[in-house]
Amino acid sequence: MAAPPVSGPSETARVEAFSDGIFAIAITLLVLNIRVPPPDLTGHGGTLLPALLRLWPAYLGYLISFLTIGIMWVNHHSMFVLIQRTDRYFLLLSVFFLMCIAFLPFPTAVLAEYLPEPKGRRVAVALYSAAFVLTAMAYNALWWYAVRWGGLLDKNADREAVVTISRRYLIGPIAYAISFGLAFINAWASLAVHGVLAAFFVLPVRKPTPRRPAM
Amino acid sequence: MAAPPVSGPSETARVEAFSDGIFAIAITLLVLNIRVPPPDLTGHGGTLLPALLRLWPAYLGYLISFLTIGIMWVNHHSMFVLIQRTDRYFLLLSVFFLMCIAFLPFPTAVLAEYLPEPKGRRVAVALYSAAFVLTAMAYNALWWYAVRWGGLLDKNADREAVVTISRRYLIGPIAYAISFGLAFINAWASLAVHGVLAAFFVLPVRKPTPRRPAM
Amino acid sequence: MAAPPVSGPSETARVEAFSDGIFAIAITLLVLNIRVPPPDLTGHGGTLLPALLRLWPAYLGYLISFLTIGIMWVNHHSMFVLIQRTDRYFLLLSVFFLMCIAFLPFPTAVLAEYLPEPKGRRVAVALYSAAFVLTAMAYNALWWYAVRWGGLLDKNADREAVVTISRRYLIGPIAYAISFGLAFINAWASLAVHGVLAAFFVLPVRKPTPRRPAM
Amino acid sequence: MAAPPVSGPSETARVEAFSDGIFAIAITLLVLNIRVPPPDLTGHGGTLLPALLRLWPAYLGYLISFLTIGIMWVNHHSMFVLIQRTDRYFLLLSVFFLMCIAFLPFPTAVLAEYLPEPKGRRVAVALYSAAFVLTAMAYNALWWYAVRWGGLLDKNADREAVVTISRRYLIGPIAYAISFGLAFINAWASLAVHGVLAAFFVLPVRKPTPRRPAM
Repeated sequence: MAAPPVSGPSETARVEAFSDGIFAIAITLLVLNIRVPPPDLTGHGGTLLPALLRLWPAYLGYLISFLTIGIMWVNHHSMFVLIQRTDRYFLLLSVFFLMCIAFLPFPTAVLAEYLPEPKGRRVAVALYSAAFVLTAMAYNALWWYAVRWGGLLDKNADREAVVTISRRYLIGPIAYAISFGLAFINAWASLAVHGVLAAFFVLPVRKPTPRRPAM
Repeated sequence: MAAPPVSGPSETARVEAFSDGIFAIAITLLVLNIRVPPPDLTGHGGTLLPALLRLWPAYLGYLISFLTIGIMWVNHHSMFVLIQRTDRYFLLLSVFFLMCIAFLPFPTAVLAEYLPEPKGRRVAVALYSAAFVLTAMAYNALWWYAVRWGGLLDKNADREAVVTISRRYLIGPIAYAISFGLAFINAWASLAVHGVLAAFFVLPVRKPTPRRPAM
Repeated sequence: MAAPPVSGPSETARVEAFSDGIFAIAITLLVLNIRVPPPDLTGHGGTLLPALLRLWPAYLGYLISFLTIGIMWVNHHSMFVLIQRTDRYFLLLSVFFLMCIAFLPFPTAVLAEYLPEPKGRRVAVALYSAAFVLTAMAYNALWWYAVRWGGLLDKNADREAVVTISRRYLIGPIAYAISFGLAFINAWASLAVHGVLAAFFVLPVRKPTPRRPAM
Repeated sequence: MAAPPVSGPSETARVEAFSDGIFAIAITLLVLNIRVPPPDLTGHGGTLLPALLRLWPAYLGYLISFLTIGIMWVNHHSMFVLIQRTDRYFLLLSVFFLMCIAFLPFPTAVLAEYLPEPKGRRVAVALYSAAFVLTAMAYNALWWYAVRWGGLLDKNADREAVVTISRRYLIGPIAYAISFGLAFINAWASLAVHGVLAAFFVLPVRKPTPRRPAM
């Protein structure tokens, strides 16, 4: 209790709201990467449908990034069920984590542009994986700070659940690092790791919440 | 009570806030589809007014999409008056639903670009309708999960109102599917379905809210 | 009490939050209308400073639109101090009002592009004023519905303050209509009305809020 | 009872929410300044990696602006722990402050474009510093109004902490003014001031919060 928390429970509400804002904006900006095919390209000879189909890398990037950021939001959400307080360093770690989240539309745009190009594909997928390595590391830093240094958890938080969650979160940076390495061997295999990881994080933790009496 | 809810009433608040954020951003990004006519196009010989009038498909797309998303927001809103709890799967279905909402600026942009082009018009309107079919299906999935599987409704929710709402929501995917089919016959008739549907969903349900004592 | 309100006080919170979201996004998107001068234009012979100064119409548009939308937000805010409930029609009027707010970045962008062009200037300013006429009308519709039809005000709202506010709000559409007419005579005089109006709405109402004991 | 506050504690919540919205959007729009290298530029002879590396000024601008805005958010946050009420003028000062925040993506974009160009570099860095001078001044105006004129602070706010905070906030405009002057001598030294300042504001105030009993 040497370093006093910035404020009471309402503080957590404001970090959550700010985080939700950035999650919501970053996830919604992803759609700007899907560009309308210009009429002059589709006009002479071609039709709209094949031009729309050629945009598949943009759709794929939208799908993977949206689901991954969305699932991160769901987990960030579960994290804040356990976190009861904030302090200055936690807020700063949050800013760093949110800087990673807000950056994700860029590697997604690069992916959408270069996935069909044999030359740039590997670098594009590697950049994409690297951005997620960084984001997952920032996410873990946030969690570890709250658990270990900051002592920001709810006193009644189920210790066992905390350990399970901690282990689970570590899978993120490791798997994305593998995906980064795979990018230089096979871009598609690397992308597949992103899909598998999203599916994995959809699964609930066995003990997802602190025990609490029925409300 | 086998599958414990993620948390208490404040949880619903956070999904609502996140959803509102994405609704608000997606709906506001629509305006970016209305592009300022470049001065060199209007400068020599032409004037600004006809150039602005030629943008009518962009205005029309803005109007239909804004109203439809706005009305969906109003209904999403009414839905959460009845929903009292959330769980992990509900959050994930929400992410999927919001992925559809956040995608809508793209088909709207395609519509704005290709509505005046006889060649691309049908495909543009079909894409537009297809996006709304998907969105309406995700919306229904959200509702049905809350009612049937998740048991997330307020215990005091008026059963009759729930049934009325359930039937009413089903009209969405069916009507948009009809609109999708119509797109290949007549693009304008297909768009008209969107207008009629927006008007229909504006009408209140006979029993819109659970009975509650005067506050 | 014939038309039951959608819900309790928390409902107002959600409309406010959604409105705040759209206000915040529309107001922040305005900056996208200020385009970075391309290096090839400034590179040969010219320097960056004059290129930045040539962007003055974009800065002016940003300034007027930001302040006007910002002041509307402040007033919208004061409005909701008096409004206690919402109903379906109020939400729909809100959607219509927010459609106007979210549209404002477009006429601002047109203004920024065509203000220095003698040919398009009048039409650009007329469009700008017309957009504000519509927005101010929607704002008044929202207020009048809450006061007259919906009966959504706080029972303890100071009647005199309500009358003062009602009269004051009517100045908006009238002044913007004058500004619209002026646009065809003198574009600068028309813009000046926007400035004067913003300054006017900054002034507090004589009786801005119900008296309450010092907290 | 002479000058009644606009409302109770919930008012502060709405300004905070609106501010958070604008902070969140402005900070997330920064990523739009990092443009995907067009394939035709990287295609012939070159590869994607060097094209991505050439974007370093855009990454640097993103990093500095994101961290600075993020830290401003953290401090704005601490400010509102002490502020208990709002009034009309405080809201208007908030609108002005937020106009500065929402403008920041523009000078960041100019910086990203002109930092590698020897000709425009100094002007770009000077514009960047000038924008932060203005923002820091608006931030101080907000704080001073709350403390001196508005009397909006929590009655129990620690006077000593208020004085410490006030002094500390004054460092912002002064340091950015120095950075502005330095821009004309050495652009890199000027940018370094931004980095140092961000690091300085990360440090906690000795007495960061009002003394309050353990909750």
